[in-house]
Amino acid sequence: MSAAAGTVIDARSGAAARREHILDAAEACFVRNGFHRTTMQDLAREAAMSPGNIYRYFESKEAVVIGLADREWARGEILVEAMERAGDRRGALSGVIERYFTQATRAGAILRLDLWCEATRNPAIAAIVQQGEDEARAWFTETLAALAAPGCDAAALYAALNPLMKGILVNKALDAGYDVGPAVAELRALIEAGLTGPAAGEAVR
Amino acid sequence: MSAAAGTVIDARSGAAARREHILDAAEACFVRNGFHRTTMQDLAREAAMSPGNIYRYFESKEAVVIGLADREWARGEILVEAMERAGDRRGALSGVIERYFTQATRAGAILRLDLWCEATRNPAIAAIVQQGEDEARAWFTETLAALAAPGCDAAALYAALNPLMKGILVNKALDAGYDVGPAVAELRALIEAGLTGPAAGEAVR
Repeated sequence: MSAAAGTVIDARSGAAARREHILDAAEACFVRNGFHRTTMQDLAREAAMSPGNIYRYFESKEAVVIGLADREWARGEILVEAMERAGDRRGALSGVIERYFTQATRAGAILRLDLWCEATRNPAIAAIVQQGEDEARAWFTETLAALAAPGCDAAALYAALNPLMKGILVNKALDAGYDVGPAVAELRALIEAGLTGPAAGEAVR
Repeated sequence: MSAAAGTVIDARSGAAARREHILDAAEACFVRNGFHRTTMQDLAREAAMSPGNIYRYFESKEAVVIGLADREWARGEILVEAMERAGDRRGALSGVIERYFTQATRAGAILRLDLWCEATRNPAIAAIVQQGEDEARAWFTETLAALAAPGCDAAALYAALNPLMKGILVNKALDAGYDVGPAVAELRALIEAGLTGPAAGEAVR
């Protein structure tokens, strides 16, 4: 590799690393003070960078939230794709539940709660939240449909699981000592009952 | 009644009416802009009163939130007591679910979501939210225990219902068009299954 090519690669990975660093700083700020209360100046201070430098990477706080959502989605996809490549959709479903609920940190749950709250009065954030909802619904519905007995309504099953999933995150955000175990077991039981057929699917609706 | 006594009563009901009026204004402000963004000045403007006058009724925004929580609780209690006096605990349970979920307004759901969010970083609000959680848990657990088949674990059943209830409110806050019907039916089905005995109670955990 020529010295010049090496420099280009370093600069690129440097920019990617810088973006990651800013996203980490943003996550810390948003969890501590909320999206609305956090300024680009706070973010720059947390990241130990100049505000001007932050703006080179993200043009607004909303752009930072899009960056966080994309990163979260990309991280989940790596896990899911590895499991789906192994042909194990049930394992992928189980892995996603494990990742989002059992392994979820309180900080992550607070960030989610804060964005839901902000979405009720900030259309840009509402659009990001809505896109995440749509992507999650599409993935879950497809995965549940592939696993379900004939006649099971995967969309209705996901609609039944969705508020329970949200409520688990709310409890995690509100209570540092919240044990997600029973609620995650409940989620798994609803999935099992829903997948076995339309009768069981009806029972949980 | 003497003229003087009449004046005292008028002044009292005037003060109560003024408190109600301030709470209505606060609800409107909090729903529109969130608890954190709302100042006592905003509240005074919304109520068409002077800030000094507002402080005669509520010493802080937190005191206003306590006032809102007390009012919400009192309104629920009137409904519940009427049903419980009629000896119908099942009707009271059904009425509470109807009131809090089917009849819930989007504004009410946004207010709740906002307070949960604020509770993650404001200890005074966290204490108010926690008290509401404790009171709701006590009432539900007692009511479920009175209705349940022997051996049913009412506390575990409530723990299973709680995140679903919260998630229904999140969806209502996020989406003006959210149909609570299926999720409320799911809530009722979980209660029915849970009340019939420990085996069914286990199935939903």
